[in-house]
Amino acid sequence: MPETSLIFPAAEYRGRVARLQEQMTTEGVDALLLTTAADVFYVTGFLTRFWESPARPWFVIVPVLGDPVAVIPSIGAPLMQRTWIEQIRTWDAPDPEDDGRTLLIDTLTSLVPDHGHVALPMGLETHLRMALLDYHAVRSALAPRRVVDGTEILQRVREVKSEAEIAKIRSSCAIAGRAFDRVPEIAGAGRPLDQLFREFQALLLEEGADWVSYLAGGAGLEGYGDVISPAPSEPLVRGDILMLDTGAVREGYFCDFDRNYAIGPASDLAKRTHEALWCATQTCLEALRPGMLARDVHHILCDALRAKGATPGGGRLGHGLGLTLTEWPSFTPKDTTPLRAGMVLTLEPGAITGADRILVHEENIVLRDSGAELLSPRAPAELPELL
Amino acid sequence: MPETSLIFPAAEYRGRVARLQEQMTTEGVDALLLTTAADVFYVTGFLTRFWESPARPWFVIVPVLGDPVAVIPSIGAPLMQRTWIEQIRTWDAPDPEDDGRTLLIDTLTSLVPDHGHVALPMGLETHLRMALLDYHAVRSALAPRRVVDGTEILQRVREVKSEAEIAKIRSSCAIAGRAFDRVPEIAGAGRPLDQLFREFQALLLEEGADWVSYLAGGAGLEGYGDVISPAPSEPLVRGDILMLDTGAVREGYFCDFDRNYAIGPASDLAKRTHEALWCATQTCLEALRPGMLARDVHHILCDALRAKGATPGGGRLGHGLGLTLTEWPSFTPKDTTPLRAGMVLTLEPGAITGADRILVHEENIVLRDSGAELLSPRAPAELPELL
Repeated sequence: MPETSLIFPAAEYRGRVARLQEQMTTEGVDALLLTTAADVFYVTGFLTRFWESPARPWFVIVPVLGDPVAVIPSIGAPLMQRTWIEQIRTWDAPDPEDDGRTLLIDTLTSLVPDHGHVALPMGLETHLRMALLDYHAVRSALAPRRVVDGTEILQRVREVKSEAEIAKIRSSCAIAGRAFDRVPEIAGAGRPLDQLFREFQALLLEEGADWVSYLAGGAGLEGYGDVISPAPSEPLVRGDILMLDTGAVREGYFCDFDRNYAIGPASDLAKRTHEALWCATQTCLEALRPGMLARDVHHILCDALRAKGATPGGGRLGHGLGLTLTEWPSFTPKDTTPLRAGMVLTLEPGAITGADRILVHEENIVLRDSGAELLSPRAPAELPELL
Repeated sequence: MPETSLIFPAAEYRGRVARLQEQMTTEGVDALLLTTAADVFYVTGFLTRFWESPARPWFVIVPVLGDPVAVIPSIGAPLMQRTWIEQIRTWDAPDPEDDGRTLLIDTLTSLVPDHGHVALPMGLETHLRMALLDYHAVRSALAPRRVVDGTEILQRVREVKSEAEIAKIRSSCAIAGRAFDRVPEIAGAGRPLDQLFREFQALLLEEGADWVSYLAGGAGLEGYGDVISPAPSEPLVRGDILMLDTGAVREGYFCDFDRNYAIGPASDLAKRTHEALWCATQTCLEALRPGMLARDVHHILCDALRAKGATPGGGRLGHGLGLTLTEWPSFTPKDTTPLRAGMVLTLEPGAITGADRILVHEENIVLRDSGAELLSPRAPAELPELL
């Protein structure tokens, strides 16, 4: 098979590694151990849906000096060899006696001095994708080396996207935008919601998504009960507000935004709430600047909703976006992450329309020195009406 | 929204919990802590694609006596309330100060006596889906309670499927079978492989998949280089063998099987190898019995391939299947897991056809007392030829 797995030129990955190494130097860390699909893809360009199988762990080690080392199941070697990574160590996984543990320990001990520090992401919005027994064994075997938290190292680097990354996310957003434009082809009174979900995923593929990692939504009079449920088989009825929220993927990069549609004429409350959500987003688009904190976005959106007579609701009101459907930071009252130019973010205000009912609205942006630049095609100001 | 999230009647989940509790009693464990999508779905019926967001941890605790307790982000409460679970404790996630940590500790300490044991899956083919810093904090706070490995408890129960589960997997297999039958509509010389991958996913959705969590494959003369890469944009050419391998999902249950197609006339080597793979699968279908070990399946398939003049290759030669694309055991020379009636398994022989080239073939079965019962529609004995 041809050389298709890089996604970006090697220079892109070298730049990422250099930025990670700079952070590692600042924090006195000798090696960074990565185990998740997004982190491994970020450093290597290794992109595969094979992560869907929980059978095997995958490791990439970024030393503070020199190139990354992949310690991976041999089934992944042909694909990893087509990336820019040159040091690839493999074992036959899954192995019930030693599933890469010894190879990982040997690699880490060869790269990190006896009293050095190995960092791995341990904080909010991270997890470790390896067997916990092996983690404990590796940690013990590394002593007197210390295992420390690498969340700051990774998140402060990954959260600022390169222009090449921004172009990929814009492309995913455009795909979803074209699919949303075609919703009138598949939605209307009498159409079962589960079937509509299938058809919408097919539209996303037709418009160029490589795969559809996320689709959620809901439908109901003046809003929906929650925004994470699978679709029920009940048909849409006149008066419903239909919401579709998708994370379509192209070349490893996600979009994450939603659109609302009224099935038949919408009620005044639904129209007013949709307008409040749209206007709150507009206010935020105009106000956003680097240097603000994540919690400031929450305040801006809540204030703007209240100014339009709407009641904020629906959890966090946006988040980071890129290699996964959602990334840090979170637009909550508590998140103090500083916003920086190059961050790709979602603005996702929600408003309560009744007992257990909400409406939500979402756009994707990149933050520039001068403010927000839309990546998703802007939703119409008026709630669109379908027959 | 209506009551659609149970998938099965509550009795199904109660039976699962009773079997887990029986194992827990045997092993002297007071509570089992679950954190992954599959484990949480298994016990509760909580099914959502929202796991795609790494932002929030989710916890379900199965005490050795009594009903499970969900400790989850409040955004999941409406959906969890529609399952059979009655004890639901929530927090507003993500919370940078305390992302469910205190609530989890309080719940575990209230359920487990001071010198009790809390189990969580730590072994092969498992991982912990929560922030590692929180894991360490919870572990410390639970002392003098001990945190122990719960892999055996969970895997020995989950690996034997109920008839209700088998019916779901059969349904997913039938969907993929119908889509594979329609591959001649989309594949042929000159068709770019990446576009074909998109169209095949659309066929799976059209045939009833709720979503397509996995699609891999390859194409090349007399075989493909690896089986986990994304599709390149190069067009198929006459002489290629095309392989598509899919994990389509319906109501939370996966299929996982592949099909091969020759683009134009196949070479004698490709035909012979396909026949050897088909016959090895047939031999295995006839020989499989409960009481064999996982490694016996590896031996049966390898011997049958060699008897037909083929060279085994391609890693493990099959595995468990159900709530995830792949489950334990693995058909490798080292896996000594006993096969039991009710296990759903894939038979996946691979054969080497040249330097860096293999052909693979896969079927899904359920093991009965009397032997293997096919869940996937059996592949044609002869390699199908497309124009």
